[in-house]
Amino acid sequence: MRTIAVDAMGGENAPKAIVQAVLQAKAELTDTKFILFGDQKKIRKLVGSDQDRIEIVATSEIINDEDEPVKAIRTKKDSSLVVAAQFVKQGKADALLSLGNTGSILACGIFIIGRIKGIARPGFMPTLPVKNSDDGFNMIDVGANAKSKPEYLLTWAKMASYYAEKVRGVKNPRVALLNNGSESDKGDDLHQSAYQLLLDSDLNFVGNIEGNELLEGKADVVATDGFTGNAVLKNIEGTSSVLIHLLKDKLLNSGFMVKIGALLIKKALKGLVSKFDVDKYGGAVLLGVDAPVVKTHGRSDQRAVYFTIKQIDKILKENIIGEFRSEFAVKN
Amino acid sequence: MRTIAVDAMGGENAPKAIVQAVLQAKAELTDTKFILFGDQKKIRKLVGSDQDRIEIVATSEIINDEDEPVKAIRTKKDSSLVVAAQFVKQGKADALLSLGNTGSILACGIFIIGRIKGIARPGFMPTLPVKNSDDGFNMIDVGANAKSKPEYLLTWAKMASYYAEKVRGVKNPRVALLNNGSESDKGDDLHQSAYQLLLDSDLNFVGNIEGNELLEGKADVVATDGFTGNAVLKNIEGTSSVLIHLLKDKLLNSGFMVKIGALLIKKALKGLVSKFDVDKYGGAVLLGVDAPVVKTHGRSDQRAVYFTIKQIDKILKENIIGEFRSEFAVKN
Repeated sequence: MRTIAVDAMGGENAPKAIVQAVLQAKAELTDTKFILFGDQKKIRKLVGSDQDRIEIVATSEIINDEDEPVKAIRTKKDSSLVVAAQFVKQGKADALLSLGNTGSILACGIFIIGRIKGIARPGFMPTLPVKNSDDGFNMIDVGANAKSKPEYLLTWAKMASYYAEKVRGVKNPRVALLNNGSESDKGDDLHQSAYQLLLDSDLNFVGNIEGNELLEGKADVVATDGFTGNAVLKNIEGTSSVLIHLLKDKLLNSGFMVKIGALLIKKALKGLVSKFDVDKYGGAVLLGVDAPVVKTHGRSDQRAVYFTIKQIDKILKENIIGEFRSEFAVKN
Repeated sequence: MRTIAVDAMGGENAPKAIVQAVLQAKAELTDTKFILFGDQKKIRKLVGSDQDRIEIVATSEIINDEDEPVKAIRTKKDSSLVVAAQFVKQGKADALLSLGNTGSILACGIFIIGRIKGIARPGFMPTLPVKNSDDGFNMIDVGANAKSKPEYLLTWAKMASYYAEKVRGVKNPRVALLNNGSESDKGDDLHQSAYQLLLDSDLNFVGNIEGNELLEGKADVVATDGFTGNAVLKNIEGTSSVLIHLLKDKLLNSGFMVKIGALLIKKALKGLVSKFDVDKYGGAVLLGVDAPVVKTHGRSDQRAVYFTIKQIDKILKENIIGEFRSEFAVKN
């Protein structure tokens, strides 16, 4: 039996969307148990009388997006997130899911659950969409680390490649390095050294990738330093959100005929927007800590949370953490 | 009389679009002379018999996008770009415009025309669009430097702020630092130090900006290290290009009614695409070299080149280079 600790209080649609997603997933994943952390009364009302593979742990505090991440996990000790992380640390649960404050989730993973031995720095990894396929790609690190070293990038690439293969089913994942040009000598010292490490590794390294090529589907895994990865990830979100906003604005304010046209294309447009919803592929995973720690977007609805639960269940089923433990304990 | 050296052979629409843009601008800018570099026969045919403030210098080589930038300017000594840069260096022209190989243009600026005394590293600076206004913002450096130091970012911010004020007419430009969070202690050592330098400067520093906020119009000038700036600029281009591609694809392949809808919204959509054409605001300027060196996109048509010529003329008229010379000679 696998057990997932669910912070039921994070995100805009908490706890309702989260609890409903848990109930939906539970019906399907018959070998998985769920522990929900948060406002017991509210959660119980949503869960109803169901007590099969579901447990509620009452907590009295909530970490908000406005909270300073590290300070919050130190001061809000009875928050749904911190107590859920403690359950994982104590072995009472196998994985952590939250829709809350990203920085606090990362801090819970690193400081409460802790690193896998042999992994110097965990990396934060979303799955992002690509142009002409539904496969997407993994980018790591997107901001768990402001400061990166070449060997971190190698470790991140190894973990992400393994993840892409086992969880997303990509055969022999193509690994690329985000750099400022395609040639092998591109980049600053960090990226030049990372290039060499990746080249000398047994990964399927396909070379450098540039910022404009990320969504083209040229790689299954993109390794990047956490600073650049953070800027680029946020920029993908920002650019697509501004473009979609401008498109909607244009369609609504360009006269009657355009409005009619907008009605006719509405459904097609919706598909486009969902393609660029970076949460479609489940949550972002903090790889390198001693349990799956998964953050999904605060805006997530029941469906998005449901997919994230399935993703976590797959990570547990494939024993990704166990593999990392033996891989990095031996080689590092 | 101001003189602009124009590489007539760079870009997809060379030399036709370039020569036509020069003729269009020349009619308007009555105090500006143009020297066109390239295939004399082709250019002469396009120019016709007009000899007023226009000169053609025959060159025999062209630097392509495939050429290795620095090697190309060393080996293709009779290329339109290199000879044009030599004219600027020798004082026979005041500014350089090219649509060609970005790396070679930067190399011409840095190695042939040379840095302004007191400026350690020139920065490459486009003007990019923002969400709810036509003003745009300047981002610097977007890739002239793979390795950056805090003091470079300060110099780039100073030059860009001055440019935004004098050339784009922005009063007291808001300067922000691209960082991985809004708080003052965010970022790696480079960005933490750059933050302090910007804070202590007499610039109108408004703090950190994150990757998702760039196109929101929160700053008039964004300072960034050249590595991150390069990744983010390319990512803006890549993300918008993929989104627009997907949108067009959806509209054409979602059945008859959607096609009708697409026809109705076509014009509105066109405005959106042009908003995200990053070349709309003229070319990107290499700031910190001893003359305006401006690169505009290889895809540019006559209109885009025309706007870039007007931009260069404004830079010359405002004596931006002269201001930089005295500003940085005194203070550094």
